[in-house]
Amino acid sequence: MIKRSAVRAAQRKAAKMLDDAGIRMSPAEQEQIEVAEFGLGELERTGLELVVYVNTDRYCAKELVLFPGQTCPEHRHPSVFGEPGKMETFRCRWGKVWLYVAGEPTPNINAQIPVGSEEYYTVFREVELNPGDQYTIPPETLHWFQAADSGAIVSEFSSTSRDEFDVFTDTRIKRVPQIVEDD
Amino acid sequence: MIKRSAVRAAQRKAAKMLDDAGIRMSPAEQEQIEVAEFGLGELERTGLELVVYVNTDRYCAKELVLFPGQTCPEHRHPSVFGEPGKMETFRCRWGKVWLYVAGEPTPNINAQIPVGSEEYYTVFREVELNPGDQYTIPPETLHWFQAADSGAIVSEFSSTSRDEFDVFTDTRIKRVPQIVEDD
Repeated sequence: MIKRSAVRAAQRKAAKMLDDAGIRMSPAEQEQIEVAEFGLGELERTGLELVVYVNTDRYCAKELVLFPGQTCPEHRHPSVFGEPGKMETFRCRWGKVWLYVAGEPTPNINAQIPVGSEEYYTVFREVELNPGDQYTIPPETLHWFQAADSGAIVSEFSSTSRDEFDVFTDTRIKRVPQIVEDD
Repeated sequence: MIKRSAVRAAQRKAAKMLDDAGIRMSPAEQEQIEVAEFGLGELERTGLELVVYVNTDRYCAKELVLFPGQTCPEHRHPSVFGEPGKMETFRCRWGKVWLYVAGEPTPNINAQIPVGSEEYYTVFREVELNPGDQYTIPPETLHWFQAADSGAIVSEFSSTSRDEFDVFTDTRIKRVPQIVEDD
C-alpha cells in the first residue's frame, strides 16, 4: 500500500529526472506516471516509476525511471494466452543501471541487495548499462535491476506488456499498486 | 545511388544531431547509421537517417533523424508472410515533424512537397509532432513526413520491421540504398 501523497511525490521526482535528462513528456503523461511500489512499503529502496508510451497487442514501449539506488525486484515474464513470455530490450538513456540475469554469477556485484530481501534474489550475472548501452532479455528469463547512486532512465522496447502476470521471486510482492487516499 | 563519402557525411551530421539532443549512441552505432537515400539523388530533400536499436520477430525500435526540411516519402507497410502490416508509433524527441496520413485533408499544410515529386504525394491529413507528442499509424495506412526547418528526431516503436517490403507511392524509389565507392 502506498499513500496518494507519496505517489504524487514520486511522480514529481520522476518527472523532474526525465525533464533534466531532456526527455519530454506531456503534462498528462507526467500526471499518469506509474509508481510501482511492489507492496513492500519501501519505495525508495524497492520500486520503479514507469511511463507507458504505447502498449498494443503487437509491441510496447516505456520509459523506466529508477531513483538513486532503487531496485526493481527479481521477476520473469511467463507465457500468457499461449504467447511466449514478454521479450524486452533495455536501453540506458541516462545515469547507470546494473541488470542481473540468469547465468554465471559475477563475483562482487555492484548492486546492494535490498536488506531483508536477500533470499528473493537468485540471479547474479551482472550487465552494466551506461547511456547508449542496451541489452535484450529473452522470454522467461529471471532478472532484476538496480540504479547506481545517480539514478537511471531506461527505455524499454518489448513485445506486448502484461505486467499483472509477472512472476516475482518474492511472493510478498504485489505488482499492481494499491493506493490509499490520505487521511 | 549515393557515394560512400556522402553516406559518411550524412552519418556524421545525424550523429551530431543525436548527440546535441542528448541521445547517446555507441561509436559502432554512429558508424552504422543507415542513410536512406531512396534512389532519387536528393538526400537533403528526400531522405531519412535511421538507427535500428533492435528488430526481432516480435518488435522493433529505431531512432529516426530528419535533416531540416527533409522528407520521408509516402509509403505504406503491407502485410507480409501472412502477418498484418507493420504498425508503428512515432514519438517526437527533438525538433518538429509534420506527419501526413490518410483522412480529411488539412487545408494549407505546413510541409512543402518535394519539387518534381508532387504527383507521388496523395494523403494530406496533417499531424504536427513536437517533443513529447506521439502518433500511432495503423497497418496499411499511407503516410509521409517532413521535418520543419529545425530538423527532427523521432523514436519509432513498432511491430517487426521489414523495410524492404515497404510500398512507395513513387515507383522510382528504391528503399534499399545502393552505395557506390568514391573514385
